Amino acid sequence: MWWWNVKLVEVRLGKHVGFCWGVQRVLDIVNGLLDDGEQVHVFGDLVHNTSVIEELKVKGVAFHKEDELWNAEKLEGVVVVRAHGMSPEERHYLEEISDRLVDGTCPIVSRLFKTGEAIEKEGYQICVYGNPRHPEMRAFKGYVKSAVFYPEVGDAKKVAVLAQTTADFSKFKEYAASLINTGRAEVRVINTICAETIMREMEVRKMAQECDLVIVVGGKMSSNTRKLFEIAKDHVRTLWIENEEEIKGETIQGKIGIVSGTSTPIEVVRRIVDYIERGG
Amino acid sequence: MWWWNVKLVEVRLGKHVGFCWGVQRVLDIVNGLLDDGEQVHVFGDLVHNTSVIEELKVKGVAFHKEDELWNAEKLEGVVVVRAHGMSPEERHYLEEISDRLVDGTCPIVSRLFKTGEAIEKEGYQICVYGNPRHPEMRAFKGYVKSAVFYPEVGDAKKVAVLAQTTADFSKFKEYAASLINTGRAEVRVINTICAETIMREMEVRKMAQECDLVIVVGGKMSSNTRKLFEIAKDHVRTLWIENEEEIKGETIQGKIGIVSGTSTPIEVVRRIVDYIERGG
Repeated sequence: MWWWNVKLVEVRLGKHVGFCWGVQRVLDIVNGLLDDGEQVHVFGDLVHNTSVIEELKVKGVAFHKEDELWNAEKLEGVVVVRAHGMSPEERHYLEEISDRLVDGTCPIVSRLFKTGEAIEKEGYQICVYGNPRHPEMRAFKGYVKSAVFYPEVGDAKKVAVLAQTTADFSKFKEYAASLINTGRAEVRVINTICAETIMREMEVRKMAQECDLVIVVGGKMSSNTRKLFEIAKDHVRTLWIENEEEIKGETIQGKIGIVSGTSTPIEVVRRIVDYIERGG
Repeated sequence: MWWWNVKLVEVRLGKHVGFCWGVQRVLDIVNGLLDDGEQVHVFGDLVHNTSVIEELKVKGVAFHKEDELWNAEKLEGVVVVRAHGMSPEERHYLEEISDRLVDGTCPIVSRLFKTGEAIEKEGYQICVYGNPRHPEMRAFKGYVKSAVFYPEVGDAKKVAVLAQTTADFSKFKEYAASLINTGRAEVRVINTICAETIMREMEVRKMAQECDLVIVVGGKMSSNTRKLFEIAKDHVRTLWIENEEEIKGETIQGKIGIVSGTSTPIEVVRRIVDYIERGG
């Protein structure tokens, strides 16, 4: 009797993979400065992706740890503010000690900061659905010092609900609805979640219901990647990997959905698709 | 063998019964004008309570039908705007044809109109949880012409959710939450429901769970009274009456909760309590 070792594989790649617009933008800024021969400094991960950062280190970008920011002295060259933004105090300090500061904050993140500032001035308690330890949220706190974070709500009569740009849209809505339920005078719900991350969220939710395995590609510190993983894993077997090396040894068969975080280069995703299609 | 016809009755009177502040206010205005010897005109029910209106008719108040407003010609005397308010066009017309117009609009209703106007100017689609045929809501439409009513929502990116001042708070919150769920850019939920009616709502909900019978006292056209009736009747046997005459013949026993609409005089409620305590 003959046994055939047949492994059926069908790969389905998400439509929204690779860098989002905001990540592409900050990388273009940094690369442009490098092309101009500038010495570029960055505090913290420019974006949450190891391979992207390693590549920039090779090109000469000086990466400093976030917690070294306030100890930094005179810096020769340009400081680029990363996609997650930076508090006004940090910006000001870096402007003082460097030749120049170039803003790489994702415009969608900047809009969140501006919205928070403006609404706070209108007399609202700002309640944010986000992770207060995430760099974007730490920067936000620099703009809106009185902001409170989920699940905190406070007892203000007028509250405005905002979200980290990469937050889970469904959970944000639940939080907002729970605030309405407290019966205060006004609850102003402003959806500050990036539409790109919402589309990726919808896509992975659909894949998780239709596939046998979902592969989420992206950095382990990436908030939007974590969200994709969390959504998928409740429905189906899900792997969270940064590159194709990490799937070696895993059983890869059936319908496979592949999505990526917004700071993952499309080339990394393509290498994973190739690896699977070649038979793993 | 003896049979005792024992009817155990325990009456529990709501804390928030009788006229609310807004109703008391408009009645004080009308009575003050009558004391000054003025001829008082009112268009539509001053408040939704037959006995109150009959009493004022006896004192000489001229009640005109709402749909006669635009046909009215020169009026000798003062027109009092009722608690539900009136559209700016109606006010203006009545000012023109009468000696004077005195505003009896409940201040909580006025605040709703002003809030609607201001928020519309800020560029929001106004969505109202209310009955578009109710006088308060018809007046509101005079101030905010583009307002839409539940369950309508429209597809505007920025919506503000307001409520008729006598709306059911729980249902308002459900409607507001459903709007958040549509994922638009901003949902501004402003609780314009009168706190007095919310307290009566909470009180009747508790009574409905603890009593054998709930008696709701108030006019059949009264929106806040209807709300109390609707809440109670889903849990327990509930009677909606305007005066003690209407409970004759009804079985009244066990724990009885009594609440009233905001346009019901406390004397009417007292007569009902007396009637029951005397043994019906």
